[in-house]
Amino acid sequence: MRKLYLIGVGAGDPQFITQQAIAALNEVDVFFLVDKGETTDELLAVRREICQRFITGTGYRFVEIAEPRRDRDAAAYENAVQDWLNLRAERFEQAISTELAPGQVGAFLVWGDPTLYDGTIRIIDSLTARGAVEFTHEVIPGISSIQVLVARHRLPLNRIGEPIHITTGRRLSAGMPAGQDNVVVMLDAGFAAAELPDASRIQVYWGAYLGTDSEVLISGRLDEVGAFIRQRKAELRAEKGWIMDTYLLRRDR
Amino acid sequence: MRKLYLIGVGAGDPQFITQQAIAALNEVDVFFLVDKGETTDELLAVRREICQRFITGTGYRFVEIAEPRRDRDAAAYENAVQDWLNLRAERFEQAISTELAPGQVGAFLVWGDPTLYDGTIRIIDSLTARGAVEFTHEVIPGISSIQVLVARHRLPLNRIGEPIHITTGRRLSAGMPAGQDNVVVMLDAGFAAAELPDASRIQVYWGAYLGTDSEVLISGRLDEVGAFIRQRKAELRAEKGWIMDTYLLRRDR
Repeated sequence: MRKLYLIGVGAGDPQFITQQAIAALNEVDVFFLVDKGETTDELLAVRREICQRFITGTGYRFVEIAEPRRDRDAAAYENAVQDWLNLRAERFEQAISTELAPGQVGAFLVWGDPTLYDGTIRIIDSLTARGAVEFTHEVIPGISSIQVLVARHRLPLNRIGEPIHITTGRRLSAGMPAGQDNVVVMLDAGFAAAELPDASRIQVYWGAYLGTDSEVLISGRLDEVGAFIRQRKAELRAEKGWIMDTYLLRRDR
Repeated sequence: MRKLYLIGVGAGDPQFITQQAIAALNEVDVFFLVDKGETTDELLAVRREICQRFITGTGYRFVEIAEPRRDRDAAAYENAVQDWLNLRAERFEQAISTELAPGQVGAFLVWGDPTLYDGTIRIIDSLTARGAVEFTHEVIPGISSIQVLVARHRLPLNRIGEPIHITTGRRLSAGMPAGQDNVVVMLDAGFAAAELPDASRIQVYWGAYLGTDSEVLISGRLDEVGAFIRQRKAELRAEKGWIMDTYLLRRDR
C-alpha cells in the first residue's frame, strides 16, 4: 500500500514547522509539487528549502504535477469545471501510480494548514472515490496564516465568549455578515473591507506575506487606514508580482 | 527590560510543537505555570514534559501562580468579577517582578494556540495597562484543537468558498447560528448539539482528548450519533475526571 501525507508546513516562516511534520518529512520518498505557473516559483522554492533544512537523509526526490490550464470562457461553465477537475485528478493519479511504488511514501507540502481554504484534501478524496490508485493518507496540521496574523498583532482571535467568523473577500463584498463582530477575511483579491459602511466602528488588523522577511502589518480604525491598506496592497502586488494577505475586522462593542 | 513569551505548545501531542516554539523555550529562564486546581495536574505535567524533551540546557525553573478562588455566588456579580480580575493581575505582577530579573526571559506555555479561547493574552494586556511591571512580549502560535480535530477526521474545515463559524456551547444552545453551515463548537460543558432541530441534515465530527493517547473520535449524522456522543462524553468525564472536546457541525447542502 502507498501512503500519502498532506503536510501543513505553516505560513511563511519555515520555523513554523512542527515536530510531527518534520518526522513525516523524513519518511517521504517522493514530494509532489503542484505547479500552478510562474507566480508560485517562490512558494515552490520555499518547499524545497524546507526539505533541505529538515530532512536528515538524501533519499527523496521531487515530482512536479502541472495543473491543467483552466478555460474560464467556456460556454458551458459547469461542464468545463468538471472536465478540468477530471483532468487534474487524472494527472494526480498518473503521477502517484507511476512515480510512487507500492509501499513507498509520498507527500504534498501545503502552505499553512491543509484544512483551511486549501484544495489538496478534496483532490485526495476525489482520487479515493475514483479508486484507480490505492493509498492510505494522513493529514498533518500546520500553523495557518490566520494564526500568524493574530500572533503578530498580539491579539486574541475572539473577545470573551464571542464567536469568530472566517469568510472570503467575495462574501465580504456583500457586507459584514449579520450579527458577526469578529470577522477574518481570506482570499480577498482586492480589499473588500474598504467598501464597508460603519467603518468608524470597526478595527482592522491586516497582514501580508505573513511570517516572511517581506511581512507587512497595518492596523487601525477602518475609516482611517482602509484606503491606505488598499493602496499599499496594490503597490506591494505590483512590486513583487504576487501577494498573500489576510485580515481581522473587529466591530466595537 | 524583561521579556515574556506566550508560547502555544499545540493541543495534546508534544509533537505538535513548532521549531519557533522550541527556539523560544530554549531562551526561557522562568516558566510561569498557572495552577487552576487539581483537575489540571495532568496538563501541568505535560508542560513540564515538553520542557524536558525540547530544552537543551538546565538553566530554567518553574514558578506556579495560583489562580484566586472565584466567588460565583456574590450578590454584586460584576464587582466580584472585577475584584477577581484585579487580584489575579496582582498575583501575576507579583510573580513576574519578584521571580524574573530585568533582562531575563519568562514564558507562559499555552495549550493549543494562545489566540483562541485562551485568556493569557488578555491578562498580559491588563498588566501592560496597569504599568506596574515593565516587559516586552511576543505571541508564538501553536496547533489548536480545532486543527487537530479536522486533521484527524481528514476533513477540510470549510467547503469551497463557504465561511467557517467558530462558537461556544453556550451560544449553540440557542440553535445553529443563522445562515451558518460549517460550525465549530468549543467550550461545550455538555453536548449542546444533541438538542438541535434538523439533526438529520447535519453531520457531526467530534473529538475528545485530541492529540493524546486517550483520543476519541466519533462522526456521523447528528440524529444517529448525537445521543451516543453525549452519553460517551459523560462516561469519559466520569472515568478521567475531566474532558476537553470540540466538534464540527456541517449542514448538508
